[in-house]
Amino acid sequence: MISELAILNCFQHLVANKTDKSIVVGSGDDAAVIKSQDKDLVHSVDISKINTHFPHDSRPEDIAYRSIAVALSDLAAMGAYPSFISIGLTSNSSNLNWYKKFTSGVEKILNEYQIQLVGGDVTNGEISICVNVFGYAYEKNILRSTAKIGDLIFITGPLGEGRKGLADWNKKEKSQYVKKFFYPEIPFEKSEYISKYATSCIDISDGLIKDLGSICKKSGVGAEIIFENIPITNDIDDLSYGDDYKLCYTCSPNKIDNELISRDHLIGKITSQKEIIVKKENLIFDLKKSGWDSFV
Amino acid sequence: MISELAILNCFQHLVANKTDKSIVVGSGDDAAVIKSQDKDLVHSVDISKINTHFPHDSRPEDIAYRSIAVALSDLAAMGAYPSFISIGLTSNSSNLNWYKKFTSGVEKILNEYQIQLVGGDVTNGEISICVNVFGYAYEKNILRSTAKIGDLIFITGPLGEGRKGLADWNKKEKSQYVKKFFYPEIPFEKSEYISKYATSCIDISDGLIKDLGSICKKSGVGAEIIFENIPITNDIDDLSYGDDYKLCYTCSPNKIDNELISRDHLIGKITSQKEIIVKKENLIFDLKKSGWDSFV
Repeated sequence: MISELAILNCFQHLVANKTDKSIVVGSGDDAAVIKSQDKDLVHSVDISKINTHFPHDSRPEDIAYRSIAVALSDLAAMGAYPSFISIGLTSNSSNLNWYKKFTSGVEKILNEYQIQLVGGDVTNGEISICVNVFGYAYEKNILRSTAKIGDLIFITGPLGEGRKGLADWNKKEKSQYVKKFFYPEIPFEKSEYISKYATSCIDISDGLIKDLGSICKKSGVGAEIIFENIPITNDIDDLSYGDDYKLCYTCSPNKIDNELISRDHLIGKITSQKEIIVKKENLIFDLKKSGWDSFV
Repeated sequence: MISELAILNCFQHLVANKTDKSIVVGSGDDAAVIKSQDKDLVHSVDISKINTHFPHDSRPEDIAYRSIAVALSDLAAMGAYPSFISIGLTSNSSNLNWYKKFTSGVEKILNEYQIQLVGGDVTNGEISICVNVFGYAYEKNILRSTAKIGDLIFITGPLGEGRKGLADWNKKEKSQYVKKFFYPEIPFEKSEYISKYATSCIDISDGLIKDLGSICKKSGVGAEIIFENIPITNDIDDLSYGDDYKLCYTCSPNKIDNELISRDHLIGKITSQKEIIVKKENLIFDLKKSGWDSFV
């Protein structure tokens, strides 16, 4: 049995300290103290669990990176940049090396996004990571509830890469997609850019149909999307599968500029009917027959 | 299998919304947005797990209350008042009533401390609650690292009540102590009062010896405590057992007023030797013989 102290020591070099200008009290006290910013705090919690959110044979460094990345995705979806995180780690590994590798994954993503780890807790049990993310709006927060009828719908990248990556991992196949599953790139630059234009936004974590459905439900609208316009990796089920962490956003047609069109994928428009319609070869694709709900 | 949505719906009435003046974006979006306060943010994470932090047969409402209370304790130890929390809940209960009872425990403590639930996540697995607490200093944060040689050491209440409560629960005995285990009272009023005087502070969650040891270690000092001055419930092992959530703080003798003395228990003083000495009947009690480390 490894002591809690030995595990915490693995994290010691990563935890923000007073030399970081935004940190008043860093590691080693009852709580962290983060310097007041003249900006509203954007905060989200995300739990990633073994067998549910990542395969049982995932490497600790991959688990760490992915669980933090998917939590950060919620900030990007809000038009917010990340500033700091804290982690509640549950693990039953009795190998100190597991924790060292886990912290190397934490360190990698902290460096990539220039964010700080301000604290956390560890306990013994089936591997689960509760990641708390904190950030501030680039310009304004982009909500789910503010899409308007007639808005155009964009996604920031192809769907299904995460799904294929997980399938490849399970088949022990090495592919570029495995990396996309464990190391999803969170589109903060896009988030900053679209926060000037977008009327609503969500990250595609649960699948386009469900996530766009959430925008529709919260905004009291519907959507019509054209299957042929959606870049997919596998097949139509990519529309209902998650794990992509691309953004889905809406934008008034009057606000669309060439840069927006050239960067992202225009996949449909917001309608007044309170349902999602997928058109494939100009025919309405029956979502319910595919076992999908229209979620609105 | 209950859907995640059904579980989240149990929490819906509790999650802060825009009518709360400190909340910009409440439930139902990718993240919560908390209004900027002109104060540094105090933040801590605490995981409470079944079989480790509470008995396997605990009631859901008791689990909820206790896991939030013990997390709040870290704020009190920092001289901070609580403002809002978020929760990462893992549970394998397939009974919706379990979640309803759990939320009733959450609601009870939110009301008692007048704090807001701003968000969270739920997932399936062995019962575990990752509680994130947020607050602001009453006056100034009280750290672990700032005890001075010659300071007096106080604790804010008796030790061992939680230990006896847990033992009584396990013996199916109904006693006032069971309530003290599941419903520890977090001493925020005391925290506010002593934040004017204290040179250092910690909450007694891991046992007095270990927690006072942490103050000594961080401050580069030692301590001498008089066993007879410490109000205990059971026996001397109460000094090394946690679960009390009283505060242990140090204070310069020049700053002590009668109010402080009459409210709390003066148990010893900070010394220059880097160890903790317990005196019992004027003899030095051998901590190591009791299986304790002096932790300094």
